[in-house]
Amino acid sequence: MIVLLGASGYVGSSIAWRLRQLGAAFFSPSHSDLDLTSRDAVSAWFADKKPEFVINAVGFTGRPNIDGTEIEKWRCLQANTVVPGVLADVLGGLGIRWGHVSSGCIFNGANADGAGFTEDEEPQFAISDPRAGWYAQTKWMAEKLLRDAPGVIIWRPRIPFNAVDNERNYLTKLMRYDRLLEVRNSISQLEEFAAATVQSLQERIPDGVYNATNPGSILTSEVAEALRRHGICRKEFQYFTDENEFLAHPGRVYRASCVLDPGKLAAQGIRMPEVHESLERTLHAWKRA
Amino acid sequence: MIVLLGASGYVGSSIAWRLRQLGAAFFSPSHSDLDLTSRDAVSAWFADKKPEFVINAVGFTGRPNIDGTEIEKWRCLQANTVVPGVLADVLGGLGIRWGHVSSGCIFNGANADGAGFTEDEEPQFAISDPRAGWYAQTKWMAEKLLRDAPGVIIWRPRIPFNAVDNERNYLTKLMRYDRLLEVRNSISQLEEFAAATVQSLQERIPDGVYNATNPGSILTSEVAEALRRHGICRKEFQYFTDENEFLAHPGRVYRASCVLDPGKLAAQGIRMPEVHESLERTLHAWKRA
Repeated sequence: MIVLLGASGYVGSSIAWRLRQLGAAFFSPSHSDLDLTSRDAVSAWFADKKPEFVINAVGFTGRPNIDGTEIEKWRCLQANTVVPGVLADVLGGLGIRWGHVSSGCIFNGANADGAGFTEDEEPQFAISDPRAGWYAQTKWMAEKLLRDAPGVIIWRPRIPFNAVDNERNYLTKLMRYDRLLEVRNSISQLEEFAAATVQSLQERIPDGVYNATNPGSILTSEVAEALRRHGICRKEFQYFTDENEFLAHPGRVYRASCVLDPGKLAAQGIRMPEVHESLERTLHAWKRA
Repeated sequence: MIVLLGASGYVGSSIAWRLRQLGAAFFSPSHSDLDLTSRDAVSAWFADKKPEFVINAVGFTGRPNIDGTEIEKWRCLQANTVVPGVLADVLGGLGIRWGHVSSGCIFNGANADGAGFTEDEEPQFAISDPRAGWYAQTKWMAEKLLRDAPGVIIWRPRIPFNAVDNERNYLTKLMRYDRLLEVRNSISQLEEFAAATVQSLQERIPDGVYNATNPGSILTSEVAEALRRHGICRKEFQYFTDENEFLAHPGRVYRASCVLDPGKLAAQGIRMPEVHESLERTLHAWKRA
Protein backbone atom coordinates (compact mmCIF):
# COMPACT_ATOMS: atom_id res chain seq x y z
CA MET A 1 0.00 0.00 0.00
CA ILE A 2 1.08 3.55 -0.84
CA VAL A 3 0.22 6.66 1.18
CA LEU A 4 -0.44 9.95 -0.57
CA LEU A 5 -0.55 13.07 1.61
CA GLY A 6 -2.19 16.24 0.34
CA ALA A 7 -4.33 14.37 -2.19
CA SER A 8 -6.95 17.11 -2.35
CA GLY A 9 -4.58 19.74 -3.71
CA TYR A 10 -3.87 20.58 -7.34
CA VAL A 11 -0.64 18.58 -7.42
CA GLY A 12 -1.83 15.87 -5.02
CA SER A 13 -5.02 15.16 -6.96
CA SER A 14 -2.97 14.62 -10.07
CA ILE A 15 -0.74 12.12 -8.26
CA ALA A 16 -3.90 10.37 -7.03
CA TRP A 17 -5.12 10.23 -10.65
CA ARG A 18 -1.81 8.66 -11.69
CA LEU A 19 -1.93 6.05 -8.92
CA ARG A 20 -5.49 5.11 -9.93
CA GLN A 21 -4.41 4.95 -13.57
CA LEU A 22 -1.69 2.47 -12.56
CA GLY A 23 -4.14 0.49 -10.44
CA ALA A 24 -1.92 1.09 -7.40
CA ALA A 25 -3.63 0.77 -4.02
CA PHE A 26 -3.18 3.94 -2.02
CA PHE A 27 -4.54 5.63 1.04
CA SER A 28 -4.97 9.40 1.48
CA PRO A 29 -5.65 10.49 5.05
CA SER A 30 -7.58 13.74 5.41
CA HIS A 31 -6.68 16.50 7.88
CA SER A 32 -9.17 15.09 10.37
CA ASP A 33 -7.77 11.56 9.99
CA LEU A 34 -4.24 12.65 10.72
CA ASP A 35 -2.68 15.82 12.11
CA LEU A 36 0.58 15.95 10.16
CA THR A 37 2.09 18.49 12.53
CA SER A 38 1.86 16.09 15.48
CA ARG A 39 4.86 13.78 15.62
CA ASP A 40 3.08 11.38 17.97
CA ALA A 41 0.01 11.12 15.74
CA VAL A 42 2.09 10.69 12.59
CA SER A 43 4.33 8.10 14.21
CA ALA A 44 1.44 5.95 15.47
CA TRP A 45 -0.41 6.21 12.16
CA PHE A 46 2.52 5.13 9.96
CA ALA A 47 3.66 2.40 12.35
CA ASP A 48 0.16 0.96 11.90
CA LYS A 49 -0.17 1.48 8.13
CA LYS A 50 3.38 0.44 7.16
CA PRO A 51 3.11 1.69 3.57
CA GLU A 52 5.52 0.66 0.84
CA PHE A 53 6.23 4.35 0.22
CA VAL A 54 4.76 7.78 0.90
CA ILE A 55 4.32 10.82 -1.34
CA ASN A 56 4.00 14.18 0.40
CA ALA A 57 2.09 16.64 -1.75
CA VAL A 58 0.99 18.78 1.19
CA GLY A 59 1.70 22.42 0.55
CA PHE A 60 0.38 25.88 1.21
CA THR A 61 0.64 28.01 -1.90
CA GLY A 62 -1.59 30.91 -0.90
CA ARG A 63 -5.00 32.09 -2.11
CA PRO A 64 -5.69 33.32 -4.71
CA ASN A 65 -1.98 33.15 -5.51
CA ILE A 66 1.44 33.26 -3.87
CA ASP A 67 0.73 36.72 -2.41
CA GLY A 68 -1.58 34.98 0.09
CA THR A 69 1.37 33.19 1.69
CA GLU A 70 2.61 36.53 2.98
CA ILE A 71 -0.61 36.95 4.97
CA GLU A 72 -0.84 33.49 6.53
CA LYS A 73 2.86 32.98 7.13
CA TRP A 74 2.63 30.48 9.97
CA ARG A 75 0.13 28.25 8.12
CA CYS A 76 2.46 28.28 5.16
CA LEU A 77 5.41 27.35 7.38
CA GLN A 78 3.47 24.52 9.06
CA ALA A 79 2.44 22.93 5.78
CA ASN A 80 5.60 23.56 3.78
CA THR A 81 8.34 23.06 6.36
CA VAL A 82 7.15 21.56 9.64
CA VAL A 83 5.17 18.75 7.99
CA PRO A 84 8.12 17.47 5.91
CA GLY A 85 10.27 17.79 9.04
CA VAL A 86 7.91 15.56 11.02
CA LEU A 87 7.74 13.10 8.12
CA ALA A 88 11.53 12.94 7.84
CA ASP A 89 11.78 12.18 11.52
CA VAL A 90 9.03 9.54 11.60
CA LEU A 91 9.52 7.87 8.21
CA GLY A 92 13.30 7.85 8.61
CA GLY A 93 12.86 6.09 11.95
CA LEU A 94 10.47 3.52 10.48
CA GLY A 95 12.64 2.95 7.41
CA ILE A 96 9.85 3.96 5.02
CA ARG A 97 10.89 5.49 1.68
CA TRP A 98 9.15 8.68 0.67
CA GLY A 99 9.12 11.62 -1.66
CA HIS A 100 8.53 15.31 -1.09
CA VAL A 101 7.17 17.86 -3.55
CA SER A 102 9.47 20.87 -3.24
CA SER A 103 9.66 23.71 -5.77
CA GLY A 104 12.06 25.25 -8.23
CA CYS A 105 11.08 28.69 -6.93
CA ILE A 106 14.21 28.77 -4.77
CA PHE A 107 16.22 29.71 -7.88
CA ASN A 108 16.12 32.85 -9.98
CA GLY A 109 17.23 33.31 -13.59
CA ALA A 110 19.55 30.89 -15.32
CA ASN A 111 23.25 30.27 -15.59
CA ALA A 112 25.27 32.85 -17.55
CA ASP A 113 25.18 30.70 -20.71
CA GLY A 114 21.40 30.29 -20.41
CA ALA A 115 21.69 26.70 -19.16
CA GLY A 116 19.33 25.60 -16.42
CA PHE A 117 20.42 25.19 -12.84
CA THR A 118 21.34 21.67 -11.77
CA GLU A 119 20.81 20.03 -8.40
CA ASP A 120 24.50 20.58 -7.60
CA GLU A 121 24.00 24.32 -7.58
CA GLU A 122 22.97 26.09 -4.38
CA PRO A 123 19.69 27.95 -4.66
CA GLN A 124 20.70 31.57 -4.81
CA PHE A 125 17.22 33.06 -4.48
CA ALA A 126 15.41 31.82 -1.36
CA ILE A 127 18.51 31.78 0.77
CA SER A 128 19.81 35.30 0.38
CA ASP A 129 17.82 37.43 -2.04
CA PRO A 130 15.90 39.97 0.04
CA ARG A 131 13.14 39.90 -2.60
CA ALA A 132 12.47 36.21 -1.90
CA GLY A 133 8.96 35.77 -0.56
CA TRP A 134 7.85 33.68 2.37
CA TYR A 135 6.74 30.77 0.19
CA ALA A 136 10.19 30.34 -1.37
CA GLN A 137 11.81 30.54 2.04
CA THR A 138 9.56 27.87 3.54
CA LYS A 139 10.25 25.53 0.60
CA TRP A 140 13.99 26.09 0.93
CA MET A 141 13.92 25.58 4.71
CA ALA A 142 12.21 22.24 4.03
CA GLU A 143 14.92 21.17 1.62
CA LYS A 144 17.51 22.02 4.23
CA LEU A 145 15.56 20.02 6.83
CA LEU A 146 15.51 17.01 4.51
CA ARG A 147 19.09 17.20 3.32
CA ASP A 148 20.44 14.75 5.84
CA ALA A 149 17.26 12.67 6.11
CA PRO A 150 17.47 9.05 4.93
CA GLY A 151 15.28 7.53 2.21
CA VAL A 152 13.75 10.69 0.78
CA ILE A 153 13.44 11.94 -2.79
CA ILE A 154 12.84 15.65 -3.31
CA TRP A 155 11.21 16.80 -6.54
CA ARG A 156 11.36 20.37 -7.76
CA PRO A 157 8.48 21.16 -10.13
CA ARG A 158 7.83 24.67 -11.44
CA ILE A 159 4.54 26.40 -12.31
CA PRO A 160 2.32 23.37 -12.99
CA PHE A 161 -0.11 23.45 -15.91
CA ASN A 162 -2.54 20.99 -17.45
CA ALA A 163 -5.62 20.81 -19.69
CA VAL A 164 -8.20 21.43 -16.97
CA ASP A 165 -9.31 24.94 -16.10
CA ASN A 166 -8.32 25.45 -12.45
CA GLU A 167 -7.24 28.45 -10.41
CA ARG A 168 -3.93 26.67 -9.71
CA ASN A 169 -3.28 26.01 -13.39
CA TYR A 170 -0.66 28.28 -15.00
CA LEU A 171 -2.76 28.47 -18.18
CA THR A 172 -5.86 29.54 -16.26
CA LYS A 173 -3.82 32.10 -14.35
CA LEU A 174 -2.35 33.59 -17.52
CA MET A 175 -5.79 33.97 -19.05
CA ARG A 176 -7.18 35.67 -15.94
CA TYR A 177 -4.43 38.22 -15.40
CA ASP A 178 -5.08 41.68 -16.77
CA ARG A 179 -1.46 42.04 -17.76
CA LEU A 180 1.44 39.64 -18.05
CA LEU A 181 5.11 39.85 -17.15
CA GLU A 182 7.44 38.58 -19.88
CA VAL A 183 9.84 36.11 -18.25
CA ARG A 184 11.56 32.85 -19.16
CA ASN A 185 10.76 29.77 -17.08
CA SER A 186 11.00 26.05 -16.89
CA ILE A 187 7.49 24.73 -16.20
CA SER A 188 5.96 21.34 -15.31
CA GLN A 189 3.08 19.63 -17.08
CA LEU A 190 1.05 18.39 -14.14
CA GLU A 191 0.21 14.82 -15.18
CA GLU A 192 3.75 14.28 -16.46
CA PHE A 193 5.12 15.53 -13.17
CA ALA A 194 2.71 13.27 -11.23
CA ALA A 195 3.80 10.25 -13.27
CA ALA A 196 7.44 11.12 -12.59
CA THR A 197 6.90 11.17 -8.82
CA VAL A 198 5.29 7.73 -8.76
CA GLN A 199 7.89 6.29 -11.14
CA SER A 200 10.72 7.66 -8.95
CA LEU A 201 9.53 5.69 -5.95
CA GLN A 202 8.40 2.59 -7.82
CA GLU A 203 11.75 2.30 -9.59
CA ARG A 204 13.68 3.14 -6.43
CA ILE A 205 15.87 5.83 -7.94
CA PRO A 206 18.61 7.06 -5.55
CA ASP A 207 17.66 9.43 -2.72
CA GLY A 208 18.24 13.09 -3.30
CA VAL A 209 17.01 16.18 -5.08
CA TYR A 210 15.63 16.08 -8.63
CA ASN A 211 14.50 18.94 -10.84
CA ALA A 212 11.16 17.84 -12.26
CA THR A 213 10.29 20.25 -15.05
CA ASN A 214 9.75 19.68 -18.75
CA PRO A 215 13.12 20.05 -20.51
CA GLY A 216 13.79 23.47 -21.97
CA SER A 217 12.26 26.80 -21.08
CA ILE A 218 9.50 29.02 -22.37
CA LEU A 219 8.60 32.71 -22.40
CA THR A 220 5.31 34.00 -21.01
CA SER A 221 4.47 35.37 -24.47
CA GLU A 222 5.01 31.97 -26.10
CA VAL A 223 2.43 30.44 -23.75
CA ALA A 224 0.03 33.34 -24.29
CA GLU A 225 0.31 33.14 -28.08
CA ALA A 226 -0.21 29.36 -27.97
CA LEU A 227 -3.44 29.93 -25.99
CA ARG A 228 -4.61 32.32 -28.74
CA ARG A 229 -3.46 30.06 -31.56
CA HIS A 230 -5.51 27.20 -30.12
CA GLY A 231 -8.54 29.49 -29.75
CA ILE A 232 -8.65 28.92 -26.00
CA CYS A 233 -8.28 32.59 -25.26
CA ARG A 234 -9.05 35.38 -27.67
CA LYS A 235 -7.87 38.33 -25.67
CA GLU A 236 -5.02 40.60 -26.72
CA PHE A 237 -2.58 40.06 -23.89
CA GLN A 238 -1.07 43.19 -22.41
CA TYR A 239 2.37 43.15 -20.83
CA PHE A 240 4.01 45.06 -18.02
CA THR A 241 6.87 47.13 -19.37
CA ASP A 242 9.10 45.77 -16.61
CA GLU A 243 9.24 44.07 -13.22
CA ASN A 244 8.98 47.34 -11.32
CA GLU A 245 5.67 48.14 -12.93
CA PHE A 246 4.45 44.64 -12.03
CA LEU A 247 5.58 45.03 -8.41
CA ALA A 248 3.99 48.47 -8.02
CA HIS A 249 0.70 46.72 -7.14
CA PRO A 250 0.28 46.72 -3.31
CA GLY A 251 0.80 43.34 -1.65
CA ARG A 252 2.41 41.86 -4.72
CA VAL A 253 5.39 39.61 -4.04
CA TYR A 254 8.41 39.45 -6.30
CA ARG A 255 8.31 36.22 -8.32
CA ALA A 256 11.46 34.43 -9.27
CA SER A 257 11.66 33.07 -12.79
CA CYS A 258 14.11 30.32 -13.48
CA VAL A 259 15.41 27.70 -15.84
CA LEU A 260 16.09 24.28 -14.36
CA ASP A 261 17.96 21.35 -15.86
CA PRO A 262 15.97 18.10 -15.41
CA GLY A 263 18.88 15.98 -16.70
CA LYS A 264 19.47 14.19 -13.40
CA LEU A 265 15.94 12.77 -13.38
CA ALA A 266 16.21 11.90 -17.09
CA ALA A 267 19.44 10.04 -16.35
CA GLN A 268 17.33 7.79 -14.09
CA GLY A 269 15.11 7.02 -17.08
CA ILE A 270 12.37 9.39 -15.97
CA ARG A 271 11.84 11.71 -18.92
CA MET A 272 9.25 14.44 -19.24
CA PRO A 273 8.64 15.67 -22.85
CA GLU A 274 10.20 18.91 -24.12
CA VAL A 275 8.25 21.90 -22.86
CA HIS A 276 6.81 23.23 -26.16
CA GLU A 277 5.75 19.74 -27.19
CA SER A 278 4.08 19.17 -23.82
CA LEU A 279 2.30 22.53 -24.01
CA GLU A 280 0.98 21.79 -27.51
CA ARG A 281 -0.40 18.45 -26.40
CA THR A 282 -1.98 20.02 -23.32
CA LEU A 283 -3.64 22.76 -25.39
CA HIS A 284 -5.01 20.16 -27.81
CA ALA A 285 -6.54 18.31 -24.87
CA TRP A 286 -8.00 21.58 -23.57
CA LYS A 287 -9.74 22.24 -26.86
CA ARG A 288 -11.34 18.84 -26.76
CA ALA A 289 -12.51 19.23 -23.15
CA MET B 1 -3.88 38.65 34.56
CA ILE B 2 -0.68 38.02 32.60
CA VAL B 3 0.15 34.89 30.61
CA LEU B 4 3.70 33.59 30.46
CA LEU B 5 4.47 30.90 27.87
CA GLY B 6 7.56 28.73 28.22
CA ALA B 7 7.84 29.36 31.98
CA SER B 8 9.80 26.15 32.58
CA GLY B 9 12.77 27.19 30.44
CA TYR B 10 15.90 29.04 31.54
CA VAL B 11 14.66 32.40 30.28
CA GLY B 12 10.99 31.75 31.09
CA SER B 13 11.64 30.75 34.69
CA SER B 14 13.50 33.99 35.22
CA ILE B 15 10.55 35.98 33.85
CA ALA B 16 8.29 33.98 36.21
CA TRP B 17 10.59 34.94 39.09
CA ARG B 18 10.34 38.59 38.10
CA LEU B 19 6.54 38.49 37.90
CA ARG B 20 6.38 36.88 41.35
CA GLN B 21 8.80 39.50 42.69
CA LEU B 22 6.46 42.21 41.41
CA GLY B 23 3.44 40.44 42.89
CA ALA B 24 1.90 40.27 39.42
CA ALA B 25 -0.73 37.56 38.89
CA PHE B 26 0.21 35.36 35.98
CA PHE B 27 -0.74 32.05 34.46
CA SER B 28 1.67 29.64 32.74
CA PRO B 29 -0.01 26.89 30.74
CA SER B 30 1.98 23.69 30.34
CA HIS B 31 2.35 21.78 27.08
CA SER B 32 -0.51 19.48 28.12
CA ASP B 33 -2.74 22.46 29.01
CA LEU B 34 -2.28 24.09 25.65
CA ASP B 35 -0.86 22.96 22.32
CA LEU B 36 0.73 26.16 21.07
CA THR B 37 1.02 24.84 17.53
CA SER B 38 -2.75 24.48 17.22
CA ARG B 39 -4.37 27.72 16.14
CA ASP B 40 -7.82 26.52 17.23
CA ALA B 41 -6.63 25.53 20.70
CA VAL B 42 -4.67 28.75 21.18
CA SER B 43 -7.55 30.88 19.96
CA ALA B 44 -10.10 29.27 22.30
CA TRP B 45 -7.73 29.42 25.25
CA PHE B 46 -6.86 33.11 24.93
CA ALA B 47 -10.43 34.15 24.14
CA ASP B 48 -11.35 32.59 27.48
CA LYS B 49 -8.39 33.90 29.52
CA LYS B 50 -8.31 37.43 28.07
CA PRO B 51 -4.94 38.33 29.63
CA GLU B 52 -3.67 41.90 29.96
CA PHE B 53 -0.56 40.86 28.07
CA VAL B 54 1.39 37.73 27.08
CA ILE B 55 5.11 36.95 27.18
CA ASN B 56 6.33 34.20 24.86
CA ALA B 57 9.50 32.62 26.22
CA VAL B 58 8.97 29.33 24.35
CA GLY B 59 12.09 28.34 22.50
CA PHE B 60 14.07 25.32 21.41
CA THR B 61 17.77 25.91 21.93
CA GLY B 62 19.07 22.37 21.57
CA ARG B 63 20.58 19.92 24.03
CA PRO B 64 23.22 20.04 25.36
CA ASN B 65 23.81 23.16 23.30
CA ILE B 66 22.96 24.79 19.99
CA ASP B 67 24.43 21.84 18.05
CA GLY B 68 21.33 19.86 19.10
CA THR B 69 19.09 22.13 17.02
CA GLU B 70 20.68 20.71 13.87
CA ILE B 71 19.45 17.22 14.82
CA GLU B 72 15.87 18.08 15.77
CA LYS B 73 15.27 20.70 13.11
CA TRP B 74 11.48 20.42 12.90
CA ARG B 75 11.01 20.63 16.69
CA CYS B 76 13.20 23.70 16.69
CA LEU B 77 11.15 25.23 13.88
CA GLN B 78 7.84 24.46 15.63
CA ALA B 79 8.91 26.10 18.89
CA ASN B 80 10.88 29.01 17.50
CA THR B 81 8.88 30.00 14.44
CA VAL B 82 5.48 28.32 14.17
CA VAL B 83 4.49 29.11 17.77
CA PRO B 84 5.15 32.87 17.47
CA GLY B 85 3.34 32.75 14.13
CA VAL B 86 0.24 31.23 15.72
CA LEU B 87 0.44 33.73 18.58
CA ALA B 88 0.71 36.68 16.18
CA ASP B 89 -2.37 35.48 14.36
CA VAL B 90 -4.48 34.80 17.47
CA LEU B 91 -3.35 37.62 19.76
CA GLY B 92 -3.44 40.13 16.93
CA GLY B 93 -7.02 39.12 16.25
CA LEU B 94 -7.99 39.41 19.91
CA GLY B 95 -6.18 42.73 20.35
CA ILE B 96 -3.96 41.35 23.13
CA ARG B 97 -0.51 42.92 23.50
CA TRP B 98 2.41 40.54 23.74
CA GLY B 99 6.16 40.17 23.67
CA HIS B 100 8.40 37.60 22.01
CA VAL B 101 11.88 36.53 23.11
CA SER B 102 13.96 36.51 19.94
CA SER B 103 17.77 36.43 19.85
CA GLY B 104 20.71 38.56 18.81
CA CYS B 105 22.25 35.51 17.13
CA ILE B 106 20.97 36.69 13.77
CA PHE B 107 23.89 39.15 13.63
CA ASN B 108 27.60 38.49 13.36
CA GLY B 109 30.46 40.81 14.37
CA ALA B 110 30.02 44.53 14.85
CA ASN B 111 29.95 47.63 12.72
CA ALA B 112 33.26 48.72 11.17
CA ASP B 113 33.86 51.26 13.95
CA GLY B 114 33.18 48.60 16.63
CA ALA B 115 29.75 50.01 17.42
CA GLY B 116 26.94 47.56 18.10
CA PHE B 117 24.23 46.83 15.57
CA THR B 118 21.00 48.75 16.00
CA GLU B 119 17.47 47.57 15.29
CA ASP B 120 17.49 49.58 12.05
CA GLU B 121 20.17 47.33 10.61
CA GLU B 122 19.19 44.17 8.73
CA PRO B 123 20.57 41.01 10.30
CA GLN B 124 23.36 39.96 7.98
CA PHE B 125 24.03 36.55 9.52
CA ALA B 126 20.90 34.38 9.64
CA ILE B 127 19.57 35.64 6.34
CA SER B 128 22.45 34.98 4.00
CA ASP B 129 25.56 33.62 5.69
CA PRO B 130 25.87 29.96 4.67
CA ARG B 131 27.48 29.28 8.07
CA ALA B 132 24.30 30.31 9.89
CA GLY B 133 22.88 27.36 11.80
CA TRP B 134 19.30 26.20 11.94
CA TYR B 135 18.64 27.92 15.27
CA ALA B 136 19.58 31.35 13.95
CA GLN B 137 17.46 30.80 10.86
CA THR B 138 14.38 29.81 12.87
CA LYS B 139 14.74 32.88 15.08
CA TRP B 140 15.10 35.14 12.06
CA MET B 141 12.12 33.54 10.29
CA ALA B 142 10.10 34.30 13.44
CA GLU B 143 11.12 37.96 13.36
CA LYS B 144 10.06 38.13 9.74
CA LEU B 145 6.73 36.49 10.62
CA LEU B 146 6.14 39.09 13.33
CA ARG B 147 7.28 42.14 11.40
CA ASP B 148 3.85 43.16 10.27
CA ALA B 149 1.98 41.80 13.30
CA PRO B 150 0.16 44.33 15.49
CA GLY B 151 0.85 44.81 19.21
CA VAL B 152 4.03 42.80 19.56
CA ILE B 153 7.37 43.67 21.14
CA ILE B 154 10.39 41.59 20.08
CA TRP B 155 13.38 41.40 22.45
CA ARG B 156 16.80 40.29 21.33
CA PRO B 157 18.85 38.96 24.24
CA ARG B 158 22.28 37.36 23.74
CA ILE B 159 23.95 34.54 25.69
CA PRO B 160 22.10 34.78 29.02
CA PHE B 161 24.03 34.40 32.27
CA ASN B 162 23.19 34.61 35.96
CA ALA B 163 24.46 33.58 39.40
CA VAL B 164 22.90 30.09 39.41
CA ASP B 165 24.80 27.10 38.05
CA ASN B 166 22.71 25.80 35.13
CA GLU B 167 23.54 24.10 31.87
CA ARG B 168 21.93 27.04 30.03
CA ASN B 169 24.01 29.60 31.91
CA TYR B 170 26.87 31.13 29.89
CA LEU B 171 29.11 31.05 32.98
CA THR B 172 28.42 27.35 33.58
CA LYS B 173 29.05 26.62 29.91
CA LEU B 174 32.38 28.44 29.92
CA MET B 175 33.55 26.50 32.98
CA ARG B 176 32.57 23.16 31.42
CA TYR B 177 34.17 23.62 28.03
CA ASP B 178 37.60 22.08 27.61
CA ARG B 179 38.72 24.97 25.47
CA LEU B 180 37.32 28.40 24.75
CA LEU B 181 37.02 30.49 21.62
CA GLU B 182 38.11 34.10 22.08
CA VAL B 183 35.32 36.29 20.70
CA ARG B 184 33.66 39.61 21.53
CA ASN B 185 29.99 39.60 22.41
CA SER B 186 27.17 41.55 23.89
CA ILE B 187 25.55 39.38 26.55
CA SER B 188 22.42 39.54 28.72
CA GLN B 189 22.24 39.17 32.49
CA LEU B 190 19.21 36.92 32.88
CA GLU B 191 17.30 38.62 35.70
CA GLU B 192 17.97 42.04 34.22
CA PHE B 193 16.68 40.81 30.88
CA ALA B 194 13.61 39.30 32.55
CA ALA B 195 12.88 42.57 34.34
CA ALA B 196 13.22 44.43 31.04
CA THR B 197 10.63 42.21 29.32
CA VAL B 198 8.02 42.76 32.02
CA GLN B 199 8.73 46.49 32.20
CA SER B 200 8.37 46.80 28.41
CA LEU B 201 4.81 45.50 28.52
CA GLN B 202 3.79 47.14 31.78
CA GLU B 203 4.97 50.54 30.56
CA ARG B 204 3.50 49.98 27.10
CA ILE B 205 6.59 50.95 25.14
CA PRO B 206 5.98 51.15 21.38
CA ASP B 207 5.71 47.93 19.36
CA GLY B 208 8.81 46.77 17.57
CA VAL B 209 12.20 45.18 17.93
CA TYR B 210 14.50 45.94 20.87
CA ASN B 211 18.03 44.75 21.50
CA ALA B 212 18.04 43.57 25.12
CA THR B 213 21.67 43.09 26.11
CA ASN B 214 23.77 44.76 28.77
CA PRO B 215 25.41 47.83 27.23
CA GLY B 216 28.93 47.29 25.96
CA SER B 217 30.65 44.10 24.96
CA ILE B 218 33.00 41.59 26.53
CA LEU B 219 35.67 39.10 25.44
CA THR B 220 35.48 35.42 26.33
CA SER B 221 38.79 35.79 28.18
CA GLU B 222 37.46 38.67 30.28
CA VAL B 223 34.62 36.48 31.51
CA ALA B 224 36.97 33.53 32.10
CA GLU B 225 39.43 35.66 34.07
CA ALA B 226 36.60 37.12 36.15
CA LEU B 227 35.49 33.59 37.05
CA ARG B 228 39.05 32.85 38.22
CA ARG B 229 39.41 36.15 40.03
CA HIS B 230 36.25 35.43 42.03
CA GLY B 231 37.51 31.95 42.86
CA ILE B 232 34.50 30.35 41.15
CA CYS B 233 36.68 28.42 38.75
CA ARG B 234 40.33 27.61 39.29
CA LYS B 235 41.16 26.03 35.99
CA GLU B 236 43.66 27.46 33.52
CA PHE B 237 41.44 28.13 30.53
CA GLN B 238 42.77 26.92 27.21
CA TYR B 239 41.84 28.65 23.97
CA PHE B 240 41.36 27.52 20.41
CA THR B 241 43.93 29.17 18.19
CA ASP B 242 41.16 30.14 15.77
CA GLU B 243 37.62 29.46 14.63
CA ASN B 244 38.66 26.71 12.25
CA GLU B 245 40.18 24.70 15.06
CA PHE B 246 36.96 25.16 17.04
CA LEU B 247 34.83 24.04 14.10
CA ALA B 248 36.97 20.97 13.38
CA HIS B 249 34.92 19.08 15.99
CA PRO B 250 32.25 16.96 14.18
CA GLY B 251 28.70 18.23 14.48
CA ARG B 252 29.80 21.60 15.74
CA VAL B 253 27.87 24.54 14.37
CA TYR B 254 29.46 27.88 13.60
CA ARG B 255 28.51 30.40 16.28
CA ALA B 256 28.02 34.01 15.46
CA SER B 257 29.46 36.53 17.90
CA CYS B 258 28.08 40.00 17.88
CA VAL B 259 27.86 43.38 19.48
CA LEU B 260 24.40 44.89 19.81
CA ASP B 261 23.40 48.42 20.71
CA PRO B 262 20.63 48.42 23.37
CA GLY B 263 20.13 52.18 23.10
CA LYS B 264 16.60 51.93 21.70
CA LEU B 265 15.38 50.09 24.80
CA ALA B 266 17.29 52.52 27.07
CA ALA B 267 15.60 55.42 25.31
CA GLN B 268 12.31 53.98 26.58
CA GLY B 269 13.70 54.18 30.12
CA ILE B 270 14.53 50.47 30.29
CA ARG B 271 18.21 50.34 31.17
CA MET B 272 20.28 47.26 31.84
CA PRO B 273 23.62 47.93 33.66
CA GLU B 274 26.92 48.04 31.75
CA VAL B 275 28.11 44.50 31.00
CA HIS B 276 31.27 44.40 33.17
CA GLU B 277 29.41 45.88 36.12
CA SER B 278 26.59 43.36 35.71
CA LEU B 279 29.05 40.47 35.45
CA GLU B 280 30.86 41.56 38.63
CA ARG B 281 27.61 41.73 40.55
CA THR B 282 26.55 38.32 39.23
CA LEU B 283 29.87 36.74 40.22
CA HIS B 284 29.58 38.23 43.73
CA ALA B 285 26.16 36.65 44.03
CA TRP B 286 27.55 33.32 42.80
CA LYS B 287 30.19 33.35 45.51
CA ARG B 288 27.56 33.87 48.15
CA ALA B 289 25.31 31.11 46.81
